[in-house]
Amino acid sequence: MKTEKNILELETVALLDDENAIEIIDQTLLPGRTELIRLRTAEEIWNAIYLLQVRGAPAIGVTAGFGIYLLTKLVNVPEESDIPEKHDENFAILEETFRKQKAYLDSSRPTAVNLSWALNRMEKVFLSMKENRALTMREVKERLRQEAEAIKEEDIDVCRRIGEYGLTLVKPGDGILTHCNAGKLCACRYGTATAPIYLGQERGYGFHVYADETRPLLQGARLTAYELASAGVDVTLLCDNMSASVMQAGKIQAVFVGCDRVAANGDTANKIGTSVVAAVAQHYGVPFYVCAPTATIDLSLKTGSEIPIEQRKPEEVTEMWYKERMAPKNIKVYNPAFDVTDHSLIAGIVTEFGIARAPYDESLREIFRQKEGDGV
Amino acid sequence: MKTEKNILELETVALLDDENAIEIIDQTLLPGRTELIRLRTAEEIWNAIYLLQVRGAPAIGVTAGFGIYLLTKLVNVPEESDIPEKHDENFAILEETFRKQKAYLDSSRPTAVNLSWALNRMEKVFLSMKENRALTMREVKERLRQEAEAIKEEDIDVCRRIGEYGLTLVKPGDGILTHCNAGKLCACRYGTATAPIYLGQERGYGFHVYADETRPLLQGARLTAYELASAGVDVTLLCDNMSASVMQAGKIQAVFVGCDRVAANGDTANKIGTSVVAAVAQHYGVPFYVCAPTATIDLSLKTGSEIPIEQRKPEEVTEMWYKERMAPKNIKVYNPAFDVTDHSLIAGIVTEFGIARAPYDESLREIFRQKEGDGV
Repeated sequence: MKTEKNILELETVALLDDENAIEIIDQTLLPGRTELIRLRTAEEIWNAIYLLQVRGAPAIGVTAGFGIYLLTKLVNVPEESDIPEKHDENFAILEETFRKQKAYLDSSRPTAVNLSWALNRMEKVFLSMKENRALTMREVKERLRQEAEAIKEEDIDVCRRIGEYGLTLVKPGDGILTHCNAGKLCACRYGTATAPIYLGQERGYGFHVYADETRPLLQGARLTAYELASAGVDVTLLCDNMSASVMQAGKIQAVFVGCDRVAANGDTANKIGTSVVAAVAQHYGVPFYVCAPTATIDLSLKTGSEIPIEQRKPEEVTEMWYKERMAPKNIKVYNPAFDVTDHSLIAGIVTEFGIARAPYDESLREIFRQKEGDGV
Repeated sequence: MKTEKNILELETVALLDDENAIEIIDQTLLPGRTELIRLRTAEEIWNAIYLLQVRGAPAIGVTAGFGIYLLTKLVNVPEESDIPEKHDENFAILEETFRKQKAYLDSSRPTAVNLSWALNRMEKVFLSMKENRALTMREVKERLRQEAEAIKEEDIDVCRRIGEYGLTLVKPGDGILTHCNAGKLCACRYGTATAPIYLGQERGYGFHVYADETRPLLQGARLTAYELASAGVDVTLLCDNMSASVMQAGKIQAVFVGCDRVAANGDTANKIGTSVVAAVAQHYGVPFYVCAPTATIDLSLKTGSEIPIEQRKPEEVTEMWYKERMAPKNIKVYNPAFDVTDHSLIAGIVTEFGIARAPYDESLREIFRQKEGDGV
């Protein structure tokens, strides 16, 4: 469905509960066309994630939450029965679908931990109702809906808080470089890496933002440049190989990037090319910050070498977007979707509970202690 | 003119003296189509350089040499007169065109010093004949032709010698990363950065080459991957933002790049993104080598900050090659064609007179002393 609305007025991911659908902006068509599409089946949800129609760690988490809710909701069980014996029987029917669809959705993309984080969070809530025979299946489904909506609401709040902490790291008039899209289109309102930029924009900071185009899928050119320009931010597009040039020219005071998974030692998986920017930033003395909701931090992994990295199709590099093929036939292509930035290159990891600094093994654990103290 | 010949059988730049033309491979059409085009007028030569139909510092130098010869040759003066008084009169007519066309060709691209180096070399030879009244204008023109052909022949020899020195820096089976095209298509046979690769290929070294695609003009995907694959080299294409990923994986033992101008302190201007690769290589402990014919070394410049950097059109980033525009309308774009790699990031500068090492202020002067001793 084509829409004339400005990108900033639209929701990245929305649950249309009455219609048993998830509505997303099809990000593969931006910036040329702004189209909303509705996902109803497991396959449609899986494909939308795999094909990057919806992308970005937080938005994938929200989509997965809505998805597992809808797919469970659509299971045909008696919803009003309050006979305790029937609870077990009906719950088992729901559980079979829940488990199957959770595994299926979880297989759509391997790197962003938010996908499994959101599905596990939904599962925890779901299984907590297993023994509660007073609940009808309608109530079970309703509780799942609430949890999925909570994931989305929390995402907005988390991004805003990341923005507030991030804003303390820069000053009015600064030049900020970002890679890929960790903006509104990867999350639900402020984005992660863009949260300080949007908050700064609201407060007249006058940042000069430089957006890497981010080959091969051009999320920087198509999405970040688009959403920031739509919001009136002063944004300049550059190719991924121009970061050294702008830093050498003194145009960049800080780098903000998002992330798909952070290990316990601070090693960070994010869009391919992130660690290139980090190495360049270190050479030019520009601080490199990772904006990371705690949902993206995976303390179960000691280092980044344990993070699975998705390899994608060669055609994304050689053919996609082009009028004609831009490389010789049958050429070998290396196309990892992510890379891992060594913690030694990271000046700070900005979370919704404050800014972690090296040594990250300690500071990230402290962030999680605060999170638990916060009762989340 | 379309040709079915393999790229390796064709000359990058050839003088067709009988036809008063320069024949080049139109590199903007590769790898999809291999077409030879003929340049006859000053405007055609200027455009071919500006539009990158012929590109790469050595090939630009050769084209400029052939160009200034042809444009001078075509001046209508009595060619056989051996009356001394007529020499001055006729030479002045040639000189007027020579100076005008030299200034015009020199304005086509600012960064590669080979352009003005070749034109200045031609001018030196030309002016050396000014006082020699025994020469007919036919002889003057013939001497210019010889000099232009010599520039080309020397280029082939220089590249081969760079290849021999470069080969001492790597071992069989090594992984080599290169950026942009400093191959056969930028020079006249071996290329500069590819010279060690081609020589290694002849000798069964079994290198694994990784070619950066090199946005926005994709010289790596279109040209380097193409010419190396045509020669049977094991080559893998990657996006410019994947260098950290392959280096982290231990796949790269050396980086070889070409250059457009090297300052006296070793600072090196080369295709945009080169200094990104250099910073990444330093982080991962991979040696980064610049392959530089002495014609590309400009001792008149103390540091790289004095090298003029060409800025190019935004459309190269936002529209070129694509089916549809890949960025929002009216977005600001940063599009420098080159960047300067700080000498501190360079492990060695490989010339036809040996490998210069830091401190480059001294070692590059020593290279030039050897060059003068060599009687060149």
